Amino acid sequence: MKRIPLALAGIGKIARDQHLPAIAADPRFELVACASRNATVEGVRNYPTLEALLAAEPRIEAVSLCSPPLPRFAQARAALAAGKHVMLEKPPGGCLSEVRALEEIARTVDRTLFASWHSRHALGVEAARTWLTTQDLRSVNVRWKEDVRRWHPGQAWIWEPGGLGVFDPGINALSIVTRILPREVALVSSTLSFPSNRQMPIAADLELFDTAGVPVHVEFDWRHGPQELWEIEVRSADGALLLSQGGNRLQIDGREVALGSVHEYPSLYSHWGGLIDRGERDVDVRPLSLVADAFLLGRREIVEPFID
Amino acid sequence: MKRIPLALAGIGKIARDQHLPAIAADPRFELVACASRNATVEGVRNYPTLEALLAAEPRIEAVSLCSPPLPRFAQARAALAAGKHVMLEKPPGGCLSEVRALEEIARTVDRTLFASWHSRHALGVEAARTWLTTQDLRSVNVRWKEDVRRWHPGQAWIWEPGGLGVFDPGINALSIVTRILPREVALVSSTLSFPSNRQMPIAADLELFDTAGVPVHVEFDWRHGPQELWEIEVRSADGALLLSQGGNRLQIDGREVALGSVHEYPSLYSHWGGLIDRGERDVDVRPLSLVADAFLLGRREIVEPFID
Repeated sequence: MKRIPLALAGIGKIARDQHLPAIAADPRFELVACASRNATVEGVRNYPTLEALLAAEPRIEAVSLCSPPLPRFAQARAALAAGKHVMLEKPPGGCLSEVRALEEIARTVDRTLFASWHSRHALGVEAARTWLTTQDLRSVNVRWKEDVRRWHPGQAWIWEPGGLGVFDPGINALSIVTRILPREVALVSSTLSFPSNRQMPIAADLELFDTAGVPVHVEFDWRHGPQELWEIEVRSADGALLLSQGGNRLQIDGREVALGSVHEYPSLYSHWGGLIDRGERDVDVRPLSLVADAFLLGRREIVEPFID
Repeated sequence: MKRIPLALAGIGKIARDQHLPAIAADPRFELVACASRNATVEGVRNYPTLEALLAAEPRIEAVSLCSPPLPRFAQARAALAAGKHVMLEKPPGGCLSEVRALEEIARTVDRTLFASWHSRHALGVEAARTWLTTQDLRSVNVRWKEDVRRWHPGQAWIWEPGGLGVFDPGINALSIVTRILPREVALVSSTLSFPSNRQMPIAADLELFDTAGVPVHVEFDWRHGPQELWEIEVRSADGALLLSQGGNRLQIDGREVALGSVHEYPSLYSHWGGLIDRGERDVDVRPLSLVADAFLLGRREIVEPFID
């Protein structure tokens, strides 16, 4: 099968750490060109903007976007309008209506839009999902806490409207929760802690229930360290599940579960290749929708200023 | 055709002004009972809670809910779980995930869930929609301004998280916009004005674009009076449309368009009856999703305190 000529836009930390190695190892994609304002990638053609890339590289069939969510929308629109398949880093947009707009364009041009959630491809997620289908659930506790200075040094955009604040990592947890739980969850209350000098929250506490009444408690905090805590604990009538290390370690009733070896980004690209081959789209906005709900219902508390 | 035995819950101003007269005039529904903490309706059986009503009135087949959005969720869940068809006043929930949860329950019990948007049934809306399908759009301006003291006197819940603030009337405009425009709209920026003593905004300014790049500017303000302004103006390459009086008056190129005579709430109940007869659901969350987006992207400004 012919390899799909691919462009990657937004060459930052996530592109170098994850996307470039995953693409290099994937037999379905051939990286042809990159677009980034300041950075270049060796061995491929480089352009300062995606628009320039699209104009110069008509052979490209697919574009993977890992720029921040706000500039990414215009890039996704341009790539779809040029008839390319598009993969979006998480979150798929700065807001829900952006994603609806992209879906409408993707339908019109009949191309594959993939709103990726890398944490859903963590090693323990599918095994957790399978086990949970057999259980009578009692409670879910999500703790997703890290040091913003370690994980987002100097990222000013993350504190601006659209940057999501502590929900930028927290949405990874919500992408797992909405994948592994057997029923829909609804938000009933939300408390957001805003540093007095910032537009986005540094911590959040959410109370949800699933449609059978099972409570789901979520704690996000960016003032945690030095070791990050990325874990989801589920108690059922007969046992307990702990998904930790961002979804990559799974324990059931205290026993380690043996997991596969295909990591998050290789699994993402493999999934996207399959979607393109089958002419399908995969756009699940529920994680972003829960974040929007947390802002909509959020009781705002002002906390001490955050100085980067 | 047998009339559908109906219960109405939440007997406040909107129930008395709109729902009761519309139900009385509708040949498909028979009002059997009402539930309300403090109020009663003459000529039917009355209960203090919907739960008590559902337990005592097994013959009821459909429940219309016009309580405020936060208590309404538990009522909707209880009504669906008891196997009743449900109509929700606008907004259909305090947040988007509540509506997804209700949809899941409605699918499970195979009953009709109707998330109503009364302003979509205003006299001029369908004629506006039809005209707009023929036009090359240039710009859309939405001005939805009223005096909160006149329209929401003493409604403390409207200022609490989940109460939507100025989006409580504003969502009516968004329900019309998402109905009449031919393409999806995406929010790109939002400015929210919060009184220093309130959790919800008193004014909002939104910038959106449709997928063809047409700008949509939205102004919501609760500090406007004495006469309310509820209008949507659309300019196209060849003409201009003005939908005013909340959707009930339509002018095209300055000329008055003659409209039908079926008003908002009679049209809502007629639509719901049809959905029940055909075994369909009608849940469009886009107006609420745009409000959630406005909070998510919202740049927060603090304005003078609001004293009711």
